[in-house]
Amino acid sequence: MWGGRFAQGPSAIMREINASIPFDKALWRQDIAASKAHVAMLGAQGIVSPEDAALIAGGLDQVAAEYAASGVPENWDLEDIHMTTESRLAELIGPAAGRLHTARSRNDQVATDFRLWVREACEQADAGLKALQEALVIRAGEHARSIMPGFTHLQTAQPVTLGHHLLAYYEMAARDRSRFADARERMNRCPLGSAALAGTGFPIDRTATAAALGFDGPTANSLDAVSDRDFALDYLMSAAQTALHLSRLAEEFIIWASQPFGFVRLPDSLSTGSSIMPQKKNPDAAELVRGHSGRIVGSLTALMITMKGLPLAYSKDMQDDKPPVFEAASLLTLCLAAMTGMVAATEFRTDRMRAAAELGYATATDLADWLVRQANIPFREAHHITGAAVKLAESRGVALDQLPLADLQAIDARIDERVYAALSVEASVAARCSHGGTAPEQVEQRVAEARAALGLG
Amino acid sequence: MWGGRFAQGPSAIMREINASIPFDKALWRQDIAASKAHVAMLGAQGIVSPEDAALIAGGLDQVAAEYAASGVPENWDLEDIHMTTESRLAELIGPAAGRLHTARSRNDQVATDFRLWVREACEQADAGLKALQEALVIRAGEHARSIMPGFTHLQTAQPVTLGHHLLAYYEMAARDRSRFADARERMNRCPLGSAALAGTGFPIDRTATAAALGFDGPTANSLDAVSDRDFALDYLMSAAQTALHLSRLAEEFIIWASQPFGFVRLPDSLSTGSSIMPQKKNPDAAELVRGHSGRIVGSLTALMITMKGLPLAYSKDMQDDKPPVFEAASLLTLCLAAMTGMVAATEFRTDRMRAAAELGYATATDLADWLVRQANIPFREAHHITGAAVKLAESRGVALDQLPLADLQAIDARIDERVYAALSVEASVAARCSHGGTAPEQVEQRVAEARAALGLG
Amino acid sequence: MWGGRFAQGPSAIMREINASIPFDKALWRQDIAASKAHVAMLGAQGIVSPEDAALIAGGLDQVAAEYAASGVPENWDLEDIHMTTESRLAELIGPAAGRLHTARSRNDQVATDFRLWVREACEQADAGLKALQEALVIRAGEHARSIMPGFTHLQTAQPVTLGHHLLAYYEMAARDRSRFADARERMNRCPLGSAALAGTGFPIDRTATAAALGFDGPTANSLDAVSDRDFALDYLMSAAQTALHLSRLAEEFIIWASQPFGFVRLPDSLSTGSSIMPQKKNPDAAELVRGHSGRIVGSLTALMITMKGLPLAYSKDMQDDKPPVFEAASLLTLCLAAMTGMVAATEFRTDRMRAAAELGYATATDLADWLVRQANIPFREAHHITGAAVKLAESRGVALDQLPLADLQAIDARIDERVYAALSVEASVAARCSHGGTAPEQVEQRVAEARAALGLG
Amino acid sequence: MWGGRFAQGPSAIMREINASIPFDKALWRQDIAASKAHVAMLGAQGIVSPEDAALIAGGLDQVAAEYAASGVPENWDLEDIHMTTESRLAELIGPAAGRLHTARSRNDQVATDFRLWVREACEQADAGLKALQEALVIRAGEHARSIMPGFTHLQTAQPVTLGHHLLAYYEMAARDRSRFADARERMNRCPLGSAALAGTGFPIDRTATAAALGFDGPTANSLDAVSDRDFALDYLMSAAQTALHLSRLAEEFIIWASQPFGFVRLPDSLSTGSSIMPQKKNPDAAELVRGHSGRIVGSLTALMITMKGLPLAYSKDMQDDKPPVFEAASLLTLCLAAMTGMVAATEFRTDRMRAAAELGYATATDLADWLVRQANIPFREAHHITGAAVKLAESRGVALDQLPLADLQAIDARIDERVYAALSVEASVAARCSHGGTAPEQVEQRVAEARAALGLG
Repeated sequence: MWGGRFAQGPSAIMREINASIPFDKALWRQDIAASKAHVAMLGAQGIVSPEDAALIAGGLDQVAAEYAASGVPENWDLEDIHMTTESRLAELIGPAAGRLHTARSRNDQVATDFRLWVREACEQADAGLKALQEALVIRAGEHARSIMPGFTHLQTAQPVTLGHHLLAYYEMAARDRSRFADARERMNRCPLGSAALAGTGFPIDRTATAAALGFDGPTANSLDAVSDRDFALDYLMSAAQTALHLSRLAEEFIIWASQPFGFVRLPDSLSTGSSIMPQKKNPDAAELVRGHSGRIVGSLTALMITMKGLPLAYSKDMQDDKPPVFEAASLLTLCLAAMTGMVAATEFRTDRMRAAAELGYATATDLADWLVRQANIPFREAHHITGAAVKLAESRGVALDQLPLADLQAIDARIDERVYAALSVEASVAARCSHGGTAPEQVEQRVAEARAALGLG
Repeated sequence: MWGGRFAQGPSAIMREINASIPFDKALWRQDIAASKAHVAMLGAQGIVSPEDAALIAGGLDQVAAEYAASGVPENWDLEDIHMTTESRLAELIGPAAGRLHTARSRNDQVATDFRLWVREACEQADAGLKALQEALVIRAGEHARSIMPGFTHLQTAQPVTLGHHLLAYYEMAARDRSRFADARERMNRCPLGSAALAGTGFPIDRTATAAALGFDGPTANSLDAVSDRDFALDYLMSAAQTALHLSRLAEEFIIWASQPFGFVRLPDSLSTGSSIMPQKKNPDAAELVRGHSGRIVGSLTALMITMKGLPLAYSKDMQDDKPPVFEAASLLTLCLAAMTGMVAATEFRTDRMRAAAELGYATATDLADWLVRQANIPFREAHHITGAAVKLAESRGVALDQLPLADLQAIDARIDERVYAALSVEASVAARCSHGGTAPEQVEQRVAEARAALGLG
Repeated sequence: MWGGRFAQGPSAIMREINASIPFDKALWRQDIAASKAHVAMLGAQGIVSPEDAALIAGGLDQVAAEYAASGVPENWDLEDIHMTTESRLAELIGPAAGRLHTARSRNDQVATDFRLWVREACEQADAGLKALQEALVIRAGEHARSIMPGFTHLQTAQPVTLGHHLLAYYEMAARDRSRFADARERMNRCPLGSAALAGTGFPIDRTATAAALGFDGPTANSLDAVSDRDFALDYLMSAAQTALHLSRLAEEFIIWASQPFGFVRLPDSLSTGSSIMPQKKNPDAAELVRGHSGRIVGSLTALMITMKGLPLAYSKDMQDDKPPVFEAASLLTLCLAAMTGMVAATEFRTDRMRAAAELGYATATDLADWLVRQANIPFREAHHITGAAVKLAESRGVALDQLPLADLQAIDARIDERVYAALSVEASVAARCSHGGTAPEQVEQRVAEARAALGLG
Repeated sequence: MWGGRFAQGPSAIMREINASIPFDKALWRQDIAASKAHVAMLGAQGIVSPEDAALIAGGLDQVAAEYAASGVPENWDLEDIHMTTESRLAELIGPAAGRLHTARSRNDQVATDFRLWVREACEQADAGLKALQEALVIRAGEHARSIMPGFTHLQTAQPVTLGHHLLAYYEMAARDRSRFADARERMNRCPLGSAALAGTGFPIDRTATAAALGFDGPTANSLDAVSDRDFALDYLMSAAQTALHLSRLAEEFIIWASQPFGFVRLPDSLSTGSSIMPQKKNPDAAELVRGHSGRIVGSLTALMITMKGLPLAYSKDMQDDKPPVFEAASLLTLCLAAMTGMVAATEFRTDRMRAAAELGYATATDLADWLVRQANIPFREAHHITGAAVKLAESRGVALDQLPLADLQAIDARIDERVYAALSVEASVAARCSHGGTAPEQVEQRVAEARAALGLG
């Protein structure tokens, strides 16, 4: 009746919609590890005999060796990685395999496996972010004194140093690492032993399995433990924030690489060329990073929607937790590597940056600040005087520091020749030496701190 | 410097992040079809010689035959399906293959291929929705007179007929089909011939290629044609609405299948059982449909974010258009098939439904309506009288129609014995015979109209 | 126990969370109109007496006059606009007011009111899009021959005309209008008379009320009619697509207004300045349009999530349909007006655009095309020859058309002096005269068609 | 030209789109506090005279007093809360007001104000979550021994205790509090002194202002400080997770309150009734909590999209950060209060819960576990034996513990009379005494721990 590709009837649909083995086979290492921890505990507690425990552990090692060598077989009838492994174990060691599932259920098993996987993904993200920070700090150190226009609204606002600009992303990455660390710590409780939903009557030792798997301890409530996917959402939220930061950096590289800006020459290795326009280097990697940020945010949205309004305890909807996390983790790893490579290998055209910084009366704020400091004029009035000076310079088509002193004094008599020292882009950036400011000394200090924090020599 | 899995340097990252062949090989049929239409036009216009056109067309057929037999080879160096196909064509027919790419670019080529794919996905969704409508209408016809509680706020409100309830989803599906039809019509313009972004100087005939590929005509602006992904968003928006409707139906089956409700016995073929609780039928398929709706909405979100703020014309971010659409289409097809199977094969426990409908004073509104109609009492006052009657019945633990007439008349003297005819659940549903109401006659009429619309005998 | 601001106990929380009058008062015109249509029908059908019908209609007019004069009173105890109006009606005309609610419920009433509001929002969006199209077409007509660089990947690719670029947005707006038109048509069925969920036993005439309110007819299923919010989602989806298009145009204006591009001078009236940098014009309006697109997409996401998994029929969750729609509609109206103003009043710096178009070997494709056409060289080989020519020109720091013929012939002997005619930016755009291409004649033709379609003189 | 409501020209559009005072006036307390800290530091550093500093501080106090008494005036020409306050200050104290803005800009000012506001919102969320935890723990203590069916897939799976079920939400709330605490700590760095984007040349003391405002120290990079909205996203992500948890609890209350379940009687104070169906209590508050979760997630999505791809430093798009955060915070406060009230005041119908727990062979797992423990049978084989027993019981329409021993032994001879002790629901929950299991002793222990953690007596 429902025709089309499912003419073979509901069973075929069910087989296809139900099977998670096509994606959850990615959990095989975690599944083996958790089963080994579980059976070791069952043996230690006398719930299974030492012989059976050893037999099962050996069998699991053999299954793992097979998977490592040949991959995980994808048989939809075995539904998922858990049944696939247990089925193969039974072929290898016989009925004793049936004792492995004592005092657990697939509900706590998958919660444990997936948590282990996500914990590793947090560590991988941290490593990727650290590599990005290293690249940023190294380039920032090279360019602590390189001057570029600082933008607000993508309009030239004040001169800044390129090193300072790069270090802004160092700070974002630091927050991202802190977020993954928080997520990792919050998720590091072991659900194993929560069984189907209510715990078990077997005299298990949850502290032992938790410790064997590197957790800080067992989870506190079995219903929560099998229903909870906060750890996956915590990961996705951290990934989304990271991706958004990377999308901003990518946007800047794309704009900087455009011909009118010409602030960077992207590395050949991260661009695509064109056989007819050899000068053309399309910033494909940066564009893909920007695009991938949309998909990572989409993955987060997907899982939030899936979890909305689910009653306790486990519902099958929660099987839809893995594809978004797997996709986001894969994209994030790639994005981090691509942006790290781009930061490391891009040629910054500091001549063009400096030239751009000199346009647009970028040091007008410095004139106003000089008036406040030297002449004790309220800032709002100093703004007004500066406006007149810029207007005059603009009408003559010259820079601020090209206006003769007499003309400046005609605007306000309190101006004297010392003002010129404040109006170059070098003076401008050097002046902004407040904590966290763009002055080269500030940048160099922050680079030194960051190198120490990263363990760079 | 950036270590980890990308130790081999930026080129390896670029290769991986840039290659779309792992997913865009799904477009191979569309790519071959569009190339054949293009080269036929180039030949007809004299842009390539008839001999070369024939040679290329033959070569494309051969490539297609290879793909159909052995799949599309996945060589990252060839990046995408377009280069993969052209490269194979060159191996097969030599330098003439180089003439195929005259007067087009990958930008208009991928826009054309993907549009063809999405157009087919619209048609597939329509077919799936039609099958669902058929199942709904057949079951609604069986149950035009079966009575169940109608809920608002998941509280028993008024009796309705099961057929009426099922037909509500028929209406949703009708709107969904209309949405896919609108999307299909809006997208049915051919971008081929827009070239990289600006059109071409070759004397091409865009009307001819558009017609050959089943489009209503060529797109009107080349910059728009290569930058536009509205058609993909239109598809995802239609898919999201459909998925949301299916999530509502799934939610109902899940609640109805719970022991306290017990309104349905789900088909074995769409449930999972338990070796220890044979009576247990987990509504896995319905839960997965509900879960998948989250992922489909997530796919839409992903592409919306990806497209946000992209300047014209083509940017590489747009390569991230395909994974969300491919995933959503695959999930939607499965969800439609699963819900169609569930509607078709579920056993409705009409005895339990009817019993539930009699609880909760579900016909109280009928008493109020009777008072308005028979005694010309303003509705708000009739509500008040009814409240007193229900309160009395509740205090005695009886149904409304079990209250003696004297007691009802003590509440309001205008009540007479005719009222009892209004207070049964059968009378209640029969009374609601307004257009679109729940009365069996209305349901049967709508079933007849729907059967005719669907071409059911 | 739950302390803090809700120390006064659950009732206070309930009052606050339950009251929709703070936002649904925006529906007052629709609510009055629907009530008037309803009571006119009740009178015509003899369900209420002609006298009562007239009394109620008059009372409703008076309530409307009060609202128009003094606003809608916001009394949380009356919960919503429906109770607020009925309560005031009762004060004005006495007990007959109680007859208005005969044969309807708040469930069909709010579905009708909101649908009327959204229908008007579709019309308002269409008007805003038409105004934007008009501005685009007028400016495109002025600049059918103005040359600018066409970008892909934000890299200079080929010269295009500014008029052609602007018309790309005309096409997007045309699709947006078509989407709102489809949405409007799909939603134009009247839910009034569906009552709480099951229809009614009163002899109502739903066709009459539908016609009185400008609907194409009544909805077909009462359960669906009170549970359906597709019309709100259809609106939000259309709004999101429009907002994404506007975000792209906004991004371009922001980039074009940057000092390195300098392609536009934004209108003073849509920028903010700075008292110290008078030359600075921050593109605030464009940035806000880009930012608002995020919020409009967020509104769509919110309502999709809210509707996910709701069982039939009405649930209170659906009260959360209005804030996202109201917000999106308000933002969309503002965005359309802002971008229309920006298109209309921006000064295009065509000198800078043209100069940028000449950079970057933007006509290299034209050389390749010339080789194909004049020398019958396969395109892929022509690409290769062109690459050598560009490389030579680049090494000498000259444009392609500044290379002597001898040097070109040294690369490929088939090149002759006619080639120079193909290498200017004017020749390049003129050549791309395929349907939808960037050639001025194509642009002028499309402008003429568009002006006719818009009814511009 | 663009007609409609904006006939008055671009300036009117700009005024409307640009003004943030309608919403950012909510920041007035933070704005005053930050300005007072700033001017105190300016005075201490000798950047302004002690007299001016005192004059300004006094003026700010007066402005604050006016706002507290009469609200913040909403004048669009003054754009935002910062200009509104400074303008009023100038009216009150004259030109010295112009010295307040020395060494700061609106970019660092708004970043500081908003961060202060969000920090308070974190604290408010923590308080709301603590109140919810208290209500959960108190009710869990009352119901540590009340038995209800535990569900997976909304199917009866195993008996659990109601106290255990409620404590699952205690754990979720604990993670939510930890998330807000992490967010608060990460955001607790002061941006003030970052000025427009590059820092300042005035000898400011950022450590002093940071300390005065309760921050742990100043931010490290001025470009990042004015461009960063991570703190707002961190808040929204924490709020979204909390809202998703509340949506799950709300879903359960809605299902439990349905007539077929009948597990709870909701408090009158958090339900709406019906004048004709007095027994009907619509769970409006729970439905609104579930619906609001969609809007809170939508707010997060909105801000993620808005931030995507923004180049450094400040862009006006970022003004769209506040409405989503303000809305989410307002909804979250209400949702927490409503669910706390519901948990505290709901009547649990433990008789109906217990009766439901006895249905559905919920103790079948206990039989299997008994076989493993008492007869040393592998779990998979024990499952098989149990299946046969359940099948037999089902065929006779009796519970498992109503099967005679002889019949059980006919299925497997290793069963003896001790088995009956394992088959009651009381025995079942008592047996599950593993750490985190549902056994009353476990629940009571966890209640005691939680009470201690919450400081309940």
